[in-house]
Amino acid sequence: MIDPVRPIQLSDIEDARINVADTVLRTPLVKLELGSGAPEVWLKLENLQPTNSYKIRGAANAVARLTDEERARGVWTISAGNAGQGVAFAARKAAIACSVVAIETAPQTKLDRMRALGATIMPVSYEQAWKAAEAHAFEGLEGTFIHPFDSHDFIAGHGTMGLEIVEQLPTVGTVIAAIGGGGLITGVGSAAKALRPGVKVIGAEPETASPYAYSLAQGAPSKFPDWQASFVDGAGGQSVTARMWQRMQPIVDGTITVTLDQTRDAMRLIAEKTRTIAEGAGGLALAAALTGQAGEGPIVCVVSGGNIDLAKFSELVA
Amino acid sequence: MIDPVRPIQLSDIEDARINVADTVLRTPLVKLELGSGAPEVWLKLENLQPTNSYKIRGAANAVARLTDEERARGVWTISAGNAGQGVAFAARKAAIACSVVAIETAPQTKLDRMRALGATIMPVSYEQAWKAAEAHAFEGLEGTFIHPFDSHDFIAGHGTMGLEIVEQLPTVGTVIAAIGGGGLITGVGSAAKALRPGVKVIGAEPETASPYAYSLAQGAPSKFPDWQASFVDGAGGQSVTARMWQRMQPIVDGTITVTLDQTRDAMRLIAEKTRTIAEGAGGLALAAALTGQAGEGPIVCVVSGGNIDLAKFSELVA
Repeated sequence: MIDPVRPIQLSDIEDARINVADTVLRTPLVKLELGSGAPEVWLKLENLQPTNSYKIRGAANAVARLTDEERARGVWTISAGNAGQGVAFAARKAAIACSVVAIETAPQTKLDRMRALGATIMPVSYEQAWKAAEAHAFEGLEGTFIHPFDSHDFIAGHGTMGLEIVEQLPTVGTVIAAIGGGGLITGVGSAAKALRPGVKVIGAEPETASPYAYSLAQGAPSKFPDWQASFVDGAGGQSVTARMWQRMQPIVDGTITVTLDQTRDAMRLIAEKTRTIAEGAGGLALAAALTGQAGEGPIVCVVSGGNIDLAKFSELVA
Repeated sequence: MIDPVRPIQLSDIEDARINVADTVLRTPLVKLELGSGAPEVWLKLENLQPTNSYKIRGAANAVARLTDEERARGVWTISAGNAGQGVAFAARKAAIACSVVAIETAPQTKLDRMRALGATIMPVSYEQAWKAAEAHAFEGLEGTFIHPFDSHDFIAGHGTMGLEIVEQLPTVGTVIAAIGGGGLITGVGSAAKALRPGVKVIGAEPETASPYAYSLAQGAPSKFPDWQASFVDGAGGQSVTARMWQRMQPIVDGTITVTLDQTRDAMRLIAEKTRTIAEGAGGLALAAALTGQAGEGPIVCVVSGGNIDLAKFSELVA
């Protein structure tokens, strides 16, 4: 019953742009002043979206593409916090009921915001959520399922960010995006490569949760053996699913693994330079660029989100 | 020798837009979700500018309009931090030497950033800086003076923000901007009123430094009797100068005075809702809107800047 994986076409992304235009912010792309000798780095500030993460792009497109019958049944999704906010926001705008199977250890700010958007929350363990994402099902929940990453329409929505990046920086050489489920990098990478075939698309993962790097080393989609929870709660999955592997392989040119300290340093640098709040996952791409492994640039780093409890943010950066 | 005050024409602002296009970010205007019963509030996020405050708009225009002779002499300005960064940034881009007469109690982050932009810093007391701003002169400094608020070109540069606001929200009813020297509100207000004559333009001041409200009560530009320093270091002057009074009177429809607690609450709300860091002055306009005294909206609040030490920010909002 699950649609087979197929490439995200430029036309899918251009259609998505029309679908999301009223919901999604065209986020600024700002240059980091890092001084001589540093790579040329630009930040795509998706933490400024209405739900403070890029997930609203995919969610708005997926909701827009529902049939009337699918809308009438309401929607549900699975989320560590950001996808749930995106789907809840888009659903509320379309007057559709929304439930979220939410990882119970998500930051309070993410859970509160999903509820504030009118979503019904069903708290589950990380393991249960990941199993539901793999199975595309969760017992007891009815309604139309919107997958938070393994969905053609969801990923095409994220692609709209890639269109903006190429328009904002036509000379872009490399795009770095965090890998969680893999939807972000597939979407933004598909758009960037459609418009600029020479662009390199690089993933970023924390060393505590780097299943894509591990899968590359194994030569097949694999479960990461030593997964640990951390403040990088919005990225870093337990494994790469076979379907997401199939989606990412043609798009992703490589991956960079960073430490939690490097991620925190990147969050601090983002705060100092751009005066925006990035969550852990939002710092990964910049942390990866600053290792030097992605070359001189111009590099665009996607700051994927900013949903972190303010007290935790203060503790990490102050 | 000081040019007489004259109104800021729409054509001045349109010319400025061309002058600043390569330097200034078209900042996003984001809607605050405040729930039913609250005014409709939008935030113009000038804290995202390359120097993290709106001052770069005026500075870029003023530098662009210098004659070759004026450029050759280098430039200087007077600053509590944000104007200095703006002028230093624009001067560096144009390869012009820059000095800043800086208020010595400015946050370290502001002083560091002016130095990082290549400016020579001359630290002085608040009193000395204010006197120099009133006199348009500072003994011992040569070069071309760029006034940080009482300058036609500087103010016309700020007007570019007003053009963006009307484009981004054609239904704008009210614009609220902090009053420090008065340049911001004159610029943004001149643009908004030229394009939308019915727009209300409201100032915001902290109760510890509200010379415009005091001057309105006195019926003449006056020195504020009980001025106190606070974390709102980027706005709130000691007095309204006669020239700035002349500039503001035709543009400003009223003013709202807020407490420091209200300002801090607004900074926290900005961080929670937009994931951006506002300095004290950057919180004033939203604090004013939330008093209800500016009506139902749509209200655009200018978040004028984000240059606050991260430790201080954390202490205020966490």
